[in-house]
Amino acid sequence: MNQKPIITLTTDFGTRDPYAAAMKGVILSICRSAKIVDLTHKLDSFNIHNCSRFLAETIPFFPDGSIHVIVVDPGVGSKRNPIVVLMADKYFVCPDNGVLTLLIKDSQAYKAYRITNNKFWMPYISNTFHGRDIFAPVAAHLANGCKLEELGEPINKLVTLKINEPVKDQYGNIIGEIIYIDGFGNCISNIHMKIIKNYKNIKINNIELSGIKDTYKDEQKGMLSALWGSSGYLEVAVNMGSAEKLFNIKMGDKIIISS
Amino acid sequence: MNQKPIITLTTDFGTRDPYAAAMKGVILSICRSAKIVDLTHKLDSFNIHNCSRFLAETIPFFPDGSIHVIVVDPGVGSKRNPIVVLMADKYFVCPDNGVLTLLIKDSQAYKAYRITNNKFWMPYISNTFHGRDIFAPVAAHLANGCKLEELGEPINKLVTLKINEPVKDQYGNIIGEIIYIDGFGNCISNIHMKIIKNYKNIKINNIELSGIKDTYKDEQKGMLSALWGSSGYLEVAVNMGSAEKLFNIKMGDKIIISS
Amino acid sequence: MNQKPIITLTTDFGTRDPYAAAMKGVILSICRSAKIVDLTHKLDSFNIHNCSRFLAETIPFFPDGSIHVIVVDPGVGSKRNPIVVLMADKYFVCPDNGVLTLLIKDSQAYKAYRITNNKFWMPYISNTFHGRDIFAPVAAHLANGCKLEELGEPINKLVTLKINEPVKDQYGNIIGEIIYIDGFGNCISNIHMKIIKNYKNIKINNIELSGIKDTYKDEQKGMLSALWGSSGYLEVAVNMGSAEKLFNIKMGDKIIISS
Repeated sequence: MNQKPIITLTTDFGTRDPYAAAMKGVILSICRSAKIVDLTHKLDSFNIHNCSRFLAETIPFFPDGSIHVIVVDPGVGSKRNPIVVLMADKYFVCPDNGVLTLLIKDSQAYKAYRITNNKFWMPYISNTFHGRDIFAPVAAHLANGCKLEELGEPINKLVTLKINEPVKDQYGNIIGEIIYIDGFGNCISNIHMKIIKNYKNIKINNIELSGIKDTYKDEQKGMLSALWGSSGYLEVAVNMGSAEKLFNIKMGDKIIISS
Repeated sequence: MNQKPIITLTTDFGTRDPYAAAMKGVILSICRSAKIVDLTHKLDSFNIHNCSRFLAETIPFFPDGSIHVIVVDPGVGSKRNPIVVLMADKYFVCPDNGVLTLLIKDSQAYKAYRITNNKFWMPYISNTFHGRDIFAPVAAHLANGCKLEELGEPINKLVTLKINEPVKDQYGNIIGEIIYIDGFGNCISNIHMKIIKNYKNIKINNIELSGIKDTYKDEQKGMLSALWGSSGYLEVAVNMGSAEKLFNIKMGDKIIISS
Repeated sequence: MNQKPIITLTTDFGTRDPYAAAMKGVILSICRSAKIVDLTHKLDSFNIHNCSRFLAETIPFFPDGSIHVIVVDPGVGSKRNPIVVLMADKYFVCPDNGVLTLLIKDSQAYKAYRITNNKFWMPYISNTFHGRDIFAPVAAHLANGCKLEELGEPINKLVTLKINEPVKDQYGNIIGEIIYIDGFGNCISNIHMKIIKNYKNIKINNIELSGIKDTYKDEQKGMLSALWGSSGYLEVAVNMGSAEKLFNIKMGDKIIISS
């Protein structure tokens, strides 16, 4: 192919440790022309839900043919399967532990293979670092043009996580919860704009919010406001401050919309 | 062009969140050959002064034609303008909030445009993430050869920040202040070597320093010393230690040079 | 050459500060086609041992001809030499302070030069930032095809660190120590699998471990187990948890294997 293959990395390794760097070396030794793109190495350790959400917010923006290596892998070396998946014209190389849950939910159709052909692995396979020994080399061989069928055996069904959806109570209120808090302290819920027809009040932890603002700046500094975030989910935020710290909001806190 | 276009990213997003990664996807989907360079995603949140200083210390080292996307943008979605600027043969895509202040001070001449042509944006524009929806796609279109004039309308004057310069007191002393503390705990002042003709004493927080050393190693371990830092500004530092922690130095602390 | 030159960066600069970004600018201004790969900027400040270990875990995975810039340099500006080294078909540009110790131990043969030819440096050389002023430009000139001999004068012997090896006590026990704790809290010792013939008990801080497990999952959640890590060294770890925090294990703690 004329274009350099894109291989992205998404891990919970951090960058102080040598793990992400070793994967980059493996990839470049097999496919020297690969364009390696760091998505993140800072995912919360072992947190597959968090990883799945990260991928749903980023992967759809990447071009067709891009290859995505994902290593949040608390079960490394045990019975969980290493897999390669083709979905929405993108490739995924990862453990079969649910990291693709939200992408599958949006995309539906996929082809998946259990990675079994050790011809495309590193010669020595450790029990604690399949990112380096299996996922990185398999991604690099894909980048070199290797076919999915050569890598292993087709499987029909992938592991998926249970996702908490908002519920409707007996009075017609919608009750969601905070599912992510970002680095600014913005607290993001699981309530998507498409499920809201109309609303009167928004309440979180007994704080009533005066409607949904357009931008962070539309509330005074230090005050809590609700907004539609960049992926269409309702979030609570503070202009020039942290909603998490200033209003002590935590993961799982309920947010209630009455209509 | 024969050379791959360079697009750098400078943000306060951190890398745990999906924001920087989503921008990379947008860029590569529009300009697959772009060479994306992470400058930093760790700027202090909302801190435009800090961002401006970061750019002054890094951008001059990049080659002509490079494109620099800067997203420290507390006013996202409100009335501040998204802009594209050509200055010293480099391109900048950012909010018009003062992030370019120190570069403008050194460079003077620039051409600036308010970004108004939504043909070069993402199809859906959120109110909270113009990095992904406006700045990243505009940078990628620039990399593809799009002209500045196509992106919007010329503007004459950019927002700039007030910069605290050192002052001279009635005795001829120069009084500066600590404007940045780096990850090693080195405390960097706003006193540039070119404004110092001669000096007798250097004092910070009632600590008198014995002259200006050449290197960190020229003072004993654990002792505070003054040096000319790598950009020509006076800094106080500790050999193999943190001046910030060991001598409790803070942003804004005064440093006094008597002559 | 047809292939883009690979230049990796390994520093203790962090990414909040402008230092790593300035180095990238310098490299791309001299060798625009360079493929810059961040290995890490998060090494413990001034910690040359840690840096040497990081390199031993990563560099062997990179392809021949790759160029590795390493800046953990507490002696910057003082008498320590800047060097360029060719070893195992890879190039290293770094201070001569021991960062290559573990790579030299594995590889033995190398050619080394003290960098003295300022034709390949930045025009102005600061005393506090040779990463930007010497190491980055020298690496970029190497990438452009510059010969080692042009950069300086050959030297025969590099500075190396003393490495603590496991010892055997009078009863035949092997006593090692924890030399690295990773971001997951896994505690890695200096005991390599190749020195262990057989073992009966493993003990750390008076905790007796029930043999060596194959994977993290082979012990119950919250329990400490011993495993062979991904580089063949014995480590103690907790399934879905941090051995460091849950069992208060520290750098230097002794680990005893009785046979």
